[in-house]
Amino acid sequence: MSATSPQTVGIELGDRSYPIVIGRDLLQDAALLDRHIAARHLLIVTNATVAPLYLSTLTRALGDRRIQSVVLPDGESYKTLETFGLIVDALIDNRLNRDAAVIALGGGVVGDMAGFAAATYQRGIDYIQVPTTLLSLVDSSVGGKTAVNHPRAKNMIGAFHQPRAVIADIATLATLPEREFRAGLAEVVKYGFIHDLEFLAWLETHASELAAREDAAVIYAVKRSCEIKAAIVGVDEREQGLRAILNLGHTFGHAIETATGYGTWLHGEAVAVGMAMAADMSVRMGWLSDADRLRVVRLLERFGLPVRAPSIGTDLARGLMGMDKKVLGGKVRLVLLRRLGNAEVVGDYPGAAFDDTLREHFS
Amino acid sequence: MSATSPQTVGIELGDRSYPIVIGRDLLQDAALLDRHIAARHLLIVTNATVAPLYLSTLTRALGDRRIQSVVLPDGESYKTLETFGLIVDALIDNRLNRDAAVIALGGGVVGDMAGFAAATYQRGIDYIQVPTTLLSLVDSSVGGKTAVNHPRAKNMIGAFHQPRAVIADIATLATLPEREFRAGLAEVVKYGFIHDLEFLAWLETHASELAAREDAAVIYAVKRSCEIKAAIVGVDEREQGLRAILNLGHTFGHAIETATGYGTWLHGEAVAVGMAMAADMSVRMGWLSDADRLRVVRLLERFGLPVRAPSIGTDLARGLMGMDKKVLGGKVRLVLLRRLGNAEVVGDYPGAAFDDTLREHFS
Repeated sequence: MSATSPQTVGIELGDRSYPIVIGRDLLQDAALLDRHIAARHLLIVTNATVAPLYLSTLTRALGDRRIQSVVLPDGESYKTLETFGLIVDALIDNRLNRDAAVIALGGGVVGDMAGFAAATYQRGIDYIQVPTTLLSLVDSSVGGKTAVNHPRAKNMIGAFHQPRAVIADIATLATLPEREFRAGLAEVVKYGFIHDLEFLAWLETHASELAAREDAAVIYAVKRSCEIKAAIVGVDEREQGLRAILNLGHTFGHAIETATGYGTWLHGEAVAVGMAMAADMSVRMGWLSDADRLRVVRLLERFGLPVRAPSIGTDLARGLMGMDKKVLGGKVRLVLLRRLGNAEVVGDYPGAAFDDTLREHFS
Repeated sequence: MSATSPQTVGIELGDRSYPIVIGRDLLQDAALLDRHIAARHLLIVTNATVAPLYLSTLTRALGDRRIQSVVLPDGESYKTLETFGLIVDALIDNRLNRDAAVIALGGGVVGDMAGFAAATYQRGIDYIQVPTTLLSLVDSSVGGKTAVNHPRAKNMIGAFHQPRAVIADIATLATLPEREFRAGLAEVVKYGFIHDLEFLAWLETHASELAAREDAAVIYAVKRSCEIKAAIVGVDEREQGLRAILNLGHTFGHAIETATGYGTWLHGEAVAVGMAMAADMSVRMGWLSDADRLRVVRLLERFGLPVRAPSIGTDLARGLMGMDKKVLGGKVRLVLLRRLGNAEVVGDYPGAAFDDTLREHFS
């Protein structure tokens, strides 16, 4: 029953600009949805966990449009070309045309797949992100990266395709399991580590309120995360340079996710370990003090996030990282911390620092 | 042993501009390939018919690069998400990175699928079109449309992704079966019908030389076709308007291809019938004289192209056309001839003219 009006963060990309609307109880706000969703024919893509919670609410609020839905199985292990095919089948079966739109109602897996379907169906139609997990609110729903996994490499098939709007209803976080909420916080603290020392300090001060999901803290954290992501995506939409710093911890993390099988580790958990590893390697490079590395580790631990890698072995890790998209010309590019609040993409680093980091964490 | 130097048509699209190089014996021209292909790691995508003819020649001319290849089964019926998956497997197995490139060596099916793989692998890498059929030389290799078919609708999953270059070696036409060569001519005469009365007159005058595949006639026809396509794509890359006139005959044609099963009718054959039908409907609209309609039909017939539709029935045809990408807001948009040399996209036409055309041809 909060009367706080929603806040908006803008992504500025010329004719592909769009708003991220952040607030409580947006899913039932027919007037707000009307303002941001122009299409009269919609396919809502969601999953078996989210559908019983929010599908009917959203459908009702969308009013007298023509609305169909497709309910996918839940989990990263279903983020495949096969499941993508199910969305395309639904688009065709329901005869969506070029002026129709897709709504992605769910977490990052739903958003990435529904977005990729929208990117490629009839060579591209509109879509709207309606994230229902913390991870997708602060990261995957913003910025237009869409993809499916290949059995041997994460997010290997995809497209850049910006949504028309992101409707971030923080009320949906109430139903998010504790483990997933904490995994989402990994991406929140990432913004502090890579770009904003002040936000990092705020997170250290407000960790308890945030962990307890208090509205004001959650809204501020989501808004600040989206603002930082918007600033970075606004100058480098297609990851030619700067945008890659958003991948702090992701190269190490992808190796963990792939080695253990998609879905065993949550993405945010793997990224948390990856960030601890990146901080460690940054110390080995002489960039970061050990005290600052400990600040990284301790903040992750305060949110109950893992900071120790599973023993997948250095050979497997190396092989899996060699397949990561951030490899150019055969060299694994890494995101490291020049200092706290400032990340950098590095291709040219001492092999020993890298080898020692792998050995320390993956042996 | 011709000493004619290759001719170049430019596609002007800002930082996505690229050349179409047209000439004879380009596939073995190492210097020319070096000028247009920057990547040092390449995956050549081709099919089982083309591979024995040109794969080793091209590989040799590409010199000391790292070159891998994937050989797909030949035919429109393989233009599926599954075959696309095979290309992605090859990209991953061979560990192509973001600075690698794909070469599409073959006809429209190979070009569309390899292009879609390049568009989506790691969210987009470079590719080069090396068309080996007349249809792909004059149409599908130019303009950046990539796609695979869905079992129920052609080209339904795809992307706009411009190649870095098109290497159009007309020597490859020597091995093209007569039926396929003639099907390709359908797209050539299309450019006359939609945009260039003078070219249409040239085609009527030089039909015999062209049908006999005489070099000078083929080079001129390919070049003029590419120039017209370049002019249209240059003003409307993503088919917001004008570019749709390139689809003359395609909506009727798609219904034929889908109803009879992909590959039974060649694309160009279906388009030939579709153009005859569009001319017929243009007469019914009062746009075209019957004499001009006969000019359309006669030129198609001079190239041995079909001008009569199979009896698929008007209901099925209507259903299949309702699934065509050119449908907006539930109305089938059609490309019709305002007059010879001038096509127009029409959404608002008398239902009777459409119904009569369907009945006349599909009953």
